[in-house]
Amino acid sequence: MKSGLALLVVALSVATGLTAAFAESVPDAPPIAIAIHGGAGTMNRADLTDEKEQAIREALSLALQAGHKQLAQGESAVSAVEAAIVVLENSPLFNAGHGAVFNSGGAHELDAAIMDGRTRNAGAIAGVGHIRNPILLAGEVMTASPHVMLAGAGAEEFAVSQGFELVENDYFSTEFRRQQLERAQAEQTSRNSLPPPELRFGTVGAVALDQDGNIAAGTSTGGMTNKRFGRIGDVPVIGAGTYADNETCAVSATGHGEYFIRSVVAHDIAALMRYSDKSLQEAVDEVVLEKLVEFGGSGGVISINRQGDIVMEHNTPGMYRGAIDTSGRLTTAIYKDE
Amino acid sequence: MKSGLALLVVALSVATGLTAAFAESVPDAPPIAIAIHGGAGTMNRADLTDEKEQAIREALSLALQAGHKQLAQGESAVSAVEAAIVVLENSPLFNAGHGAVFNSGGAHELDAAIMDGRTRNAGAIAGVGHIRNPILLAGEVMTASPHVMLAGAGAEEFAVSQGFELVENDYFSTEFRRQQLERAQAEQTSRNSLPPPELRFGTVGAVALDQDGNIAAGTSTGGMTNKRFGRIGDVPVIGAGTYADNETCAVSATGHGEYFIRSVVAHDIAALMRYSDKSLQEAVDEVVLEKLVEFGGSGGVISINRQGDIVMEHNTPGMYRGAIDTSGRLTTAIYKDE
Repeated sequence: MKSGLALLVVALSVATGLTAAFAESVPDAPPIAIAIHGGAGTMNRADLTDEKEQAIREALSLALQAGHKQLAQGESAVSAVEAAIVVLENSPLFNAGHGAVFNSGGAHELDAAIMDGRTRNAGAIAGVGHIRNPILLAGEVMTASPHVMLAGAGAEEFAVSQGFELVENDYFSTEFRRQQLERAQAEQTSRNSLPPPELRFGTVGAVALDQDGNIAAGTSTGGMTNKRFGRIGDVPVIGAGTYADNETCAVSATGHGEYFIRSVVAHDIAALMRYSDKSLQEAVDEVVLEKLVEFGGSGGVISINRQGDIVMEHNTPGMYRGAIDTSGRLTTAIYKDE
Repeated sequence: MKSGLALLVVALSVATGLTAAFAESVPDAPPIAIAIHGGAGTMNRADLTDEKEQAIREALSLALQAGHKQLAQGESAVSAVEAAIVVLENSPLFNAGHGAVFNSGGAHELDAAIMDGRTRNAGAIAGVGHIRNPILLAGEVMTASPHVMLAGAGAEEFAVSQGFELVENDYFSTEFRRQQLERAQAEQTSRNSLPPPELRFGTVGAVALDQDGNIAAGTSTGGMTNKRFGRIGDVPVIGAGTYADNETCAVSATGHGEYFIRSVVAHDIAALMRYSDKSLQEAVDEVVLEKLVEFGGSGGVISINRQGDIVMEHNTPGMYRGAIDTSGRLTTAIYKDE
């Protein structure tokens, strides 16, 4: 009944505005919270139609609700992260799952990772082309294999052995991404050059705190438009794009992956908290707004700690993001000034 | 003349013992130094014949000399790391390049990474089967591509585009490793189980300090015997098995890769130095001898800082290792008590 009401409140809020009390907070109940992102980049108000902006905010809200529902039911932070990311992967609006960008060969290669802050167990997959929801395969690697990172056909062989169904690679294709590929190919003159900045990024991710006080982080992506050579970005690199440790924080990143790998972004935030006694906000600000900017790395992160503090920062004009905080308040945002 | 004499000294020392003054230190010359490893594991004196032990110490010495020669000629730490690792990759004694372990399909999949502490530029390759010296391809990714990490066939396509020759996969095969595969397959009863502990590890790596005061780290491996599912270990994961930053240290790790990924070992050592003001020795001890042991992660690291301090620690009975320190003294070691 309560959750039915909460869903109604959210449905209304999604239809009417940006912020809503998602569910009333229960006194004395342990805090739960979730935050998500749908990629950082150069998005400006002029580039987004009202319809598209509304669609993105609705998709973010649905993903937040799916994750928060898990938490409200007493499920783990890992389950909440998976549930939220599945919604974002299934949406054609984000560069993950259905709607992933094309590589230079006109196909899709997907990466994903998840990490459980309670155990620091982790799972990551790189370069898979036939897994509908890569985040769920990353979770399966974490829980059902002795390994952390599996790549390519081997990762899919593992998936089949665990009962995953394979999908055709064109399940991930959308007309919008095909046009982006054509544009990237027209503008990339050299074989080793990068696509235009606005076509480089695109990732989805989630971080969550569950009733048991455990945090988790997950990230999923189709990588870089027109990518070649089996390029792997920061998403499946534990410590770079994805990291979680109950003692510090859970982080999911989005941005120019190479800089995030070289900066070990997610672990650097955790290390600043652990060794320099910085707050989550201070650590994220230092890494995302100072160190990464100085280094030339565009992007952002979402993060959470065991107290349920949520920090979402980016050094780009925009980052698709949203949260349901410990008070039950749902927010979504796109631009820097929100 | 001087280097010819030095080589003679080394040749004698290799033939006669474990330690030698490799080259006299030149007063006022900037310090140079190099350290290498050939893997950590359960090696005990009873398991190694005198002949094999001698062969390993000679190979380590030759690799050290190859790297040190680069440094003495004023070449970069990156060049020294590459030169030392090429020698180890070409030796059948170590699990990297020729002499790499077999995967479950009876083939070889190689990973490597290199990082330049001056720029924090990095290159990594995962799952390649036809590159004679994977460390050189990692270096090419670092310097000639806009990416950090390339995997599988894509990495080899990049290699060909850069003029690398491909070798047959069986170039890497040795009878010793085939017997290890058969043993692992006989003892691994479950599809998702691990091989016996002594067949899990095996990696080579190097760290160096050059005349310009820059440090670098590199690592190369054939991975885990009987590995399946395109498993990627810690070696090509920047921050886990390989990391370098002039402001702190250069680290190359070897051990049970999954634990090293989950602990972000190499970056954690750097973070302890940077944020907790620990010395290199203190940071390595805390991560390798305390945190990793508590976590269940077997293995070790070699490391160097800009002063030329070298720290080599492992929580396993043995680690093949060696160094030429800033005084020119060459040492090799295998067991814990050396």
